[in-house]
Amino acid sequence: MARQRATTTADVVAAAAQIFETRGYRNVTVDDIGQAAGISRPTVYKYIESKPWLLGQMVSAITDEMSGPLAELMTSDLSPRDKLRAVIRFHIASTVNKRVYYATVFSEQSELPESARELFRDWSHKVTEDFASLVDDHLEAEGLTPRVETRFLANLILSMLTSMYRWYDPEGEISPDALYDRLVVVLSGAIPGL
Amino acid sequence: MARQRATTTADVVAAAAQIFETRGYRNVTVDDIGQAAGISRPTVYKYIESKPWLLGQMVSAITDEMSGPLAELMTSDLSPRDKLRAVIRFHIASTVNKRVYYATVFSEQSELPESARELFRDWSHKVTEDFASLVDDHLEAEGLTPRVETRFLANLILSMLTSMYRWYDPEGEISPDALYDRLVVVLSGAIPGL
Repeated sequence: MARQRATTTADVVAAAAQIFETRGYRNVTVDDIGQAAGISRPTVYKYIESKPWLLGQMVSAITDEMSGPLAELMTSDLSPRDKLRAVIRFHIASTVNKRVYYATVFSEQSELPESARELFRDWSHKVTEDFASLVDDHLEAEGLTPRVETRFLANLILSMLTSMYRWYDPEGEISPDALYDRLVVVLSGAIPGL
Repeated sequence: MARQRATTTADVVAAAAQIFETRGYRNVTVDDIGQAAGISRPTVYKYIESKPWLLGQMVSAITDEMSGPLAELMTSDLSPRDKLRAVIRFHIASTVNKRVYYATVFSEQSELPESARELFRDWSHKVTEDFASLVDDHLEAEGLTPRVETRFLANLILSMLTSMYRWYDPEGEISPDALYDRLVVVLSGAIPGL
């Protein structure tokens, strides 16, 4: 595939993620990254600090994309049900937009710089806590009793949502909108009234 | 922690998985593995072929544990519902017994020897196909219509079951039996009559 010449850090990160996924982080050199990004090795260093730093950028790309909208959503006037549904949409969008980053971040855990590992852990924790508190709010608003502990449920559901990168192909038979409809059906057993 | 001196290949694989998880596969030497297993470096090579070979053993440990019982289950006289429930129990047992192997296999995808990667991919495919066909059988036996495509559902549920290693602590508040009860509740929305 002909590749555009990278002109931003984000372009280089995206090009690197593609070859990290196919060839493995350790097996890729900065020269390879330059080649994939259509720029020379010295030019690569205009955009990136180092190879490990790139992994940190991939973690940030995942966490930044969701953190802002999620914080805004949590304090919005929407009903808890609509907030939960919005969170499901955020995860679908994130899987579609950042699939290659998820694959790399989960497959290269031991290579992540400590700061990136912490960022990812804190983000996972926050996303799970927010989801659990939305389920609590939703059940209370509906006058329903939780069927299982909401913290447990949040762990289970979030691990499912953050693993969609493993099998979901947005170009395949199930469009992102169709995926959303199906997730609501599937999760309504665990979250009554969703 | 005082460690028993390894006397089998399985002992060395288990010791290696522990330090791969905490320190990362690439950062661990065969000397480190020997130290963790309480044996000398030359003795390590009595039990293992190489470091990459160890990753293959971890994949086999996961796939072997489930493949036999799953094949037996599929051809048994149990109802489709009971078979589905048994599969959920297999996954809980596998997460409890092989948590460290799951963590390593998923975190070191790019380091897996090609044969191990293929074995894992084929196994994931087989487990997903078997699950989908059990859901089909169950719905047919109950005279129910699938609410979502069963292949999709199987992908979603299996990714959840094979990601439990990320958050589930069998020593924590939720025992493996309690986890089973909760999974049946959570999945009964997706699989009516489960």
